[in-house]
Amino acid sequence: MATAEPELMQKIVSLCKRRGFVFQSSDIYGGLRSAYDYGPMGVELKRNLMSEWWTAMVHSREDIYGLDASIIMHPEVWRSSGHLANFTDPLVDCQVCQERFRADKAPRTAEGEDAPIELADKGRAKAALAKLAEAGIELERKGKLLLGAKAGDRGYVCPNCGSPFMSAERDFNGMFRTNLGAVDPMAQVIAAVQEGTKRGDEAKAIRAAVEEVLAESSVYLRPETAQGMFVQFLNIQQSMAAKIPFGVAQMGKSFRNEVTVEHFIFRSCEFEQMEMEWFCAPGSGREWLEYWKETRMKWWQSLGLAADKLRLREHEASELAHYSDGTFDVEYEFPWGWDELEGIASRTDYDLNAHMAGSGKKIFYTDPEAQDPETGKAPWRYVPHVVEPAAGATRGVLAVLCGAYDEEPGDEAGKGARTVLRLHPRLAPIKVAVLPLVRKEGMPEVARKIADQFFRQGVNAKLDEQHAIGRRYARHDEIGTPYCLTVDGQTSEDGTVTLRYRDDRRQERVAVDAAVDVIREALREGRE
Amino acid sequence: MATAEPELMQKIVSLCKRRGFVFQSSDIYGGLRSAYDYGPMGVELKRNLMSEWWTAMVHSREDIYGLDASIIMHPEVWRSSGHLANFTDPLVDCQVCQERFRADKAPRTAEGEDAPIELADKGRAKAALAKLAEAGIELERKGKLLLGAKAGDRGYVCPNCGSPFMSAERDFNGMFRTNLGAVDPMAQVIAAVQEGTKRGDEAKAIRAAVEEVLAESSVYLRPETAQGMFVQFLNIQQSMAAKIPFGVAQMGKSFRNEVTVEHFIFRSCEFEQMEMEWFCAPGSGREWLEYWKETRMKWWQSLGLAADKLRLREHEASELAHYSDGTFDVEYEFPWGWDELEGIASRTDYDLNAHMAGSGKKIFYTDPEAQDPETGKAPWRYVPHVVEPAAGATRGVLAVLCGAYDEEPGDEAGKGARTVLRLHPRLAPIKVAVLPLVRKEGMPEVARKIADQFFRQGVNAKLDEQHAIGRRYARHDEIGTPYCLTVDGQTSEDGTVTLRYRDDRRQERVAVDAAVDVIREALREGRE
Repeated sequence: MATAEPELMQKIVSLCKRRGFVFQSSDIYGGLRSAYDYGPMGVELKRNLMSEWWTAMVHSREDIYGLDASIIMHPEVWRSSGHLANFTDPLVDCQVCQERFRADKAPRTAEGEDAPIELADKGRAKAALAKLAEAGIELERKGKLLLGAKAGDRGYVCPNCGSPFMSAERDFNGMFRTNLGAVDPMAQVIAAVQEGTKRGDEAKAIRAAVEEVLAESSVYLRPETAQGMFVQFLNIQQSMAAKIPFGVAQMGKSFRNEVTVEHFIFRSCEFEQMEMEWFCAPGSGREWLEYWKETRMKWWQSLGLAADKLRLREHEASELAHYSDGTFDVEYEFPWGWDELEGIASRTDYDLNAHMAGSGKKIFYTDPEAQDPETGKAPWRYVPHVVEPAAGATRGVLAVLCGAYDEEPGDEAGKGARTVLRLHPRLAPIKVAVLPLVRKEGMPEVARKIADQFFRQGVNAKLDEQHAIGRRYARHDEIGTPYCLTVDGQTSEDGTVTLRYRDDRRQERVAVDAAVDVIREALREGRE
Repeated sequence: MATAEPELMQKIVSLCKRRGFVFQSSDIYGGLRSAYDYGPMGVELKRNLMSEWWTAMVHSREDIYGLDASIIMHPEVWRSSGHLANFTDPLVDCQVCQERFRADKAPRTAEGEDAPIELADKGRAKAALAKLAEAGIELERKGKLLLGAKAGDRGYVCPNCGSPFMSAERDFNGMFRTNLGAVDPMAQVIAAVQEGTKRGDEAKAIRAAVEEVLAESSVYLRPETAQGMFVQFLNIQQSMAAKIPFGVAQMGKSFRNEVTVEHFIFRSCEFEQMEMEWFCAPGSGREWLEYWKETRMKWWQSLGLAADKLRLREHEASELAHYSDGTFDVEYEFPWGWDELEGIASRTDYDLNAHMAGSGKKIFYTDPEAQDPETGKAPWRYVPHVVEPAAGATRGVLAVLCGAYDEEPGDEAGKGARTVLRLHPRLAPIKVAVLPLVRKEGMPEVARKIADQFFRQGVNAKLDEQHAIGRRYARHDEIGTPYCLTVDGQTSEDGTVTLRYRDDRRQERVAVDAAVDVIREALREGRE
């Protein structure tokens, strides 16, 4: 059954809470803006997705090495990488509705265009009219609308009320700053302000003095995992005796103080990434970019995401980061439209050069067999180039949930209607539910033995004996359990169970061993 | 071979760097105090250890649910839990050597005891002598020693130089504070200081005004994962229809701004925990405490930690947290002595009561079948009690490394000497190395097929064709690979390989299938 798209997001958010996939962080305290907790089902789904990535990237190949770097890194890392100077958003305050927003994300307008302002209600419109009049701006009010304003030369208006009356843009760095060490920076900050004020320093000088005090102990939460791989390139290359081309892969939390958070877990301040830096010889970046965009698209498809909901979008020249000579986004068609799942960028030798300059350490690779293009002789000593497939794990979870969510209307009277999550068996939180038909006649004990048999094979099975069998099937459909095994009176006699398939509700009577084979086979599906 | 203990730690740290287990964070920038990165081998070891915990706690039981809560939680969480008020260390500065240290960890002294001061060298001792003389304190210098001082009534002296001349104690909160939202707290802080100063406010009032400004956007990095389970108790209980007793388990990063960092990865500012909150009926806490201390001890032993290196230590009454009615530590005998791996605490109903008071939400559980002890009738509605086994994952990794590290001296001439990590096969980063004897005659291709065969079984095998076979064996001994399979000319003829055992270097010629069986069996060992 087709579901309207905005409604679909609401349904997914609701299922996520009801079935223990995703809760608002600190829910009982009213929730924290843009942070989410993964409940019993969500933590399994996220672990499964990330584990698939790790298996594909690290375990199944000899040329990619794993890393788990700390979230708090040396502050100089962010100076070298450019994040301290450049990782900033232009922030603006609307002087009519007080909305704080990002200038680069605001609705575009041409200078002189009509800029009608819409407030929440008539009362607010009246108040705004009066306030603008005080400032010498005369507009006409119609209900909650204020008319007569024209867009200025900023090129945008307030995304909330449409007003062209705004504060100046100011830079806002998206990194979270904190302080490391047993120091009390605030005592020193207070002293610096008081001394500066006493000296009659200008505001700018006082601010600089405060920043100087803070810089002594400031550290940042990483806004991406990638820098860990660049900073540890030498240690990994040397300890593993790694030969180029090789990659370093890392999964983990990153943090961005996002001004705009949106679309449930799609954009949040705390999120999880799966990034790999592929170190290769100068001149081979574009070739590897081709390899990695194909490889990564196949991987997303292997998780059951539909091919027609995935696309590769090449960045236009104007959109490219200054260090990149080619970037593709893997995009998924979310309920709100196409949006980014993963970025695959050829980053040239920008990153290692930046850290070489910043740290003063020599970051080179020597290939004893290759010819140096300049001298025509081996060895070739060079700064490796990098191709980076950087995927969002949290976004991946959302894409998988959106793709898997389905509703079946049932018959004309709605009988047999259900909601089902058609998750790939490898991603499903529970692979198989073992259900004693009733809680007596030894059925729970037989079910226990069957569940243990799966467990010994490394398959996450759950014994589930709560509620009537129909309710249990419905619950397992909603959390995406691909198989249910029902244990009844016959099971202890002949070792057969009812195997129920999630996707078509088909049921068949099979021996327990045959059921084990079906499920193990399904878990291997789509893996090379 | 017995190794002196401090030397042992040095050797482990050195092996960790050389073989890609653990690197200093941001190494090329001179390293960051007390943060570590897990390299290609370390990330596998840590993942394996944490995965074992998750399997034992969540996958192999029906009564424990997983959770992955955000690191940045609502600030009120920390007010309710007591961390904002109480999670503080008493900090002191030595006025002789400038060491900053924790009063509660400093060497104990009795009042009036001799307190000899030892500086790093004669020059510093002379300077200190002169400085003390200025302050009216006359001591006698012998080389780098200053004699004649007596311990005061503080009960401790400086842990670095032994001086009894110290600043007052001040409270230092161990939580990392940062700011959420598109605000610039420093602009407001500066304004608050200037206004307060203009008004002639006292230092304390200015400080309070600054704290008020900061509080508007302050959030904290969690110093433990446990609060996530308490705050989400209701959502989990309801979405899972969970029946008490049940547990909620979480693994992940926590952060403490430690004054004293020590023993490599044992105590660091960023670390990883594995915590489980077991919710049970009032009155059953002590009984469950017994169950969990036994269960957790067995788990640590199942990972190959020697029984005589593990012990349970009960907290004395004076040592108990104010909310606990019983706590045991699982301790491991590290090279520096017995130290904590895990704390298992009966926490009564303290936590849920605290969050009920803080959030205003009713946090109760209703057992429809149990009799309320007061009325003698069902249902029984109560605030659940909690037993918490809280383990350090990072500490677990260190314990496992210490326990596994071994050196064999070889013969009298030192021939055959080696270093070997006797890791449990389930913890070993690589389970089996597949080694073509030479890089020709089709051996790498046969080895590739064998490695793929393991991979399809979910066993992390690595094809390794670098260097001579002896060097490869030595490398795999050092990273703890339990089995090596050597492929030679005979392999393509009769399908046999040389199976080499890490622990005793025994070699035997077996069919590839037999080797697969040996390794799969070893991976199951010690699992119930």
